[in-house]
Amino acid sequence: MQKTTLLHEGKAKKVFLTGDSDLVIQEFKDDATAFNNKKKGTIADKGVVNNAISCKLFTMLESHGVKTHLVEKLSERDMLCRRLDIIKVEVVVRNIAAGSLVKRYGFTEGTVLDKPIVEFYLKDDDLDDPLMNESHAVALGVATLEELSVLGDRAKAINAVLREFFAQRKLKLVDFKLEFGRYHNEILLGDEISPDTCRFWDLDTNEKMDKDRFRFDLGGVEDAYGEVQRRVLEQG
Amino acid sequence: MQKTTLLHEGKAKKVFLTGDSDLVIQEFKDDATAFNNKKKGTIADKGVVNNAISCKLFTMLESHGVKTHLVEKLSERDMLCRRLDIIKVEVVVRNIAAGSLVKRYGFTEGTVLDKPIVEFYLKDDDLDDPLMNESHAVALGVATLEELSVLGDRAKAINAVLREFFAQRKLKLVDFKLEFGRYHNEILLGDEISPDTCRFWDLDTNEKMDKDRFRFDLGGVEDAYGEVQRRVLEQG
Repeated sequence: MQKTTLLHEGKAKKVFLTGDSDLVIQEFKDDATAFNNKKKGTIADKGVVNNAISCKLFTMLESHGVKTHLVEKLSERDMLCRRLDIIKVEVVVRNIAAGSLVKRYGFTEGTVLDKPIVEFYLKDDDLDDPLMNESHAVALGVATLEELSVLGDRAKAINAVLREFFAQRKLKLVDFKLEFGRYHNEILLGDEISPDTCRFWDLDTNEKMDKDRFRFDLGGVEDAYGEVQRRVLEQG
Repeated sequence: MQKTTLLHEGKAKKVFLTGDSDLVIQEFKDDATAFNNKKKGTIADKGVVNNAISCKLFTMLESHGVKTHLVEKLSERDMLCRRLDIIKVEVVVRNIAAGSLVKRYGFTEGTVLDKPIVEFYLKDDDLDDPLMNESHAVALGVATLEELSVLGDRAKAINAVLREFFAQRKLKLVDFKLEFGRYHNEILLGDEISPDTCRFWDLDTNEKMDKDRFRFDLGGVEDAYGEVQRRVLEQG
């Protein structure tokens, strides 16, 4: 399968059309952004690492019955995917308080939540991806109530699988962002799952092993991404 | 019934204990604040007007089966109320896009929503009353899922009654904020319903007849409050 036209260039990936109208190729870049593009940089080989991690996680999720857009890993940076009609809702699942949960609601960072928090954000860079609820999403026309219910349930199911997977690899899954899309009357998990879109803390040391190292200039960014890749790809 | 100890002084009201531990007296002040206390001022006789409007609306809502904290209007500025354990959730219902809906999500002001939007905000001045969803509220311990479901349903029912009531008085009910509290195993509507807590637009001219006149220095604040009072209290 070959790339044809560039369909879309995002902050971390390019998406290309292919000869098959149902398929696209997602190319992972090394570009890193944070705080809605206010901070920009590069993380060496991030594209390679995130493609490898995402392909492994999507394959693992498929084996647990979660439908994703992954068809196959084509090359170091390229993922062959089903072409989704992306739902403009970013679904965030939180197991431990960090980031905006601390800032917005006054949670103490590191507080383990009794039940995961699931959040919907409007996927709109111009508006800074605002938090919303179901009635906003419906009024904005980005999803139906039924779709939002599927997204919420799917996100919780994915969380249960991912938490267990990462715990076995000595990583706490603090929180993560998912995107979904419509594909022939189904809703599939899209985008990526990587240290760009998740917060991972080392199970023993609580060391941050994700994009927070880039966001807050903690150093060792590439090492952290590489270590997550190593743990994700290890057998077990 | 006499006021005893001052229990709480808020931005627009004082709440006093009484000789009956189940009852409090809510005293309406003329103080006006906006933008979470960043703007402060006074609206002449606002306390008198808002007490009159709130008592009338609570009585009207009771006649439609909505349980409220109102016992009786004691005097120009005083309302005798059941003493609630206030739920720290501000429930906002929106029929027409205005305010934060425009700013946060890019709605065009004045857009009539197909279905009302219901929002939950954490009642916490220090955090600037952030928008939240059900899972935040539960994690924060401010309400149970069951209580939030009651709040959402109650707010929609109240909206239906109020819209009709105000339409008959040539006012569009754009949006409004409600507070609820626990009282002997029941949830009652508390606080007030007034031009401080609602947006009203004249049905014919779309003139703003609420606290937005104070917020945005539109002038004619007292006249607008007085006119809303006149229309609310008229028979019909």
